[in-house]
Amino acid sequence: MNDARFPWLILVPRVEATEIIDLAAPDRARLLDEIVTVSTALRNATHCDKLNVAALGNLVRQLHVHVVARLTTDAAWPRPVWGIGEAVAYQPADRDRLAGQILGALPR
Amino acid sequence: MNDARFPWLILVPRVEATEIIDLAAPDRARLLDEIVTVSTALRNATHCDKLNVAALGNLVRQLHVHVVARLTTDAAWPRPVWGIGEAVAYQPADRDRLAGQILGALPR
Repeated sequence: MNDARFPWLILVPRVEATEIIDLAAPDRARLLDEIVTVSTALRNATHCDKLNVAALGNLVRQLHVHVVARLTTDAAWPRPVWGIGEAVAYQPADRDRLAGQILGALPR
Repeated sequence: MNDARFPWLILVPRVEATEIIDLAAPDRARLLDEIVTVSTALRNATHCDKLNVAALGNLVRQLHVHVVARLTTDAAWPRPVWGIGEAVAYQPADRDRLAGQILGALPR
């Protein structure tokens, strides 16, 4: 998410599905593995205080999973991040640094 | 959750953990299985329009997973349910009916 207030990744399984329970069991297991990989990378990159992991999808029906790094000093703490104020776009250098850290942690 | 506005279950793994990624891999897989079981039971019991599944834990650190049945007519739609107004306690008969439907769907 292009919102510098919250380091925030969204996983979008490349299958047509709305709910986690609509996935076949192997796809669910793969999604969990990918949540773990991305959560670990995000925590390592941000030294966050808490991770928020959520599949909501009330507005966008395609299954997607939010993985958000939370700091006790962030703009929404301790509330969830959805619907809090307006997004603040990243400076390109900050965006590229975070993206590089996350991409570098993914299996090749 | 004793909030008749939203059929809402909370899974609390009986291990000391804060994040999904802190669980050992077999415990993570078991948690996913339990999310699937409970989500399916909740959808069947409520005929909901959408499930919301989330591990947030900003206020309560013990790992827990929210599984919430959402209706497009509910008090928060399409927003997330957290922090929306005040909980409305169930009537005992409604509570027992929903609990019975969920418990009946769990493996013995």
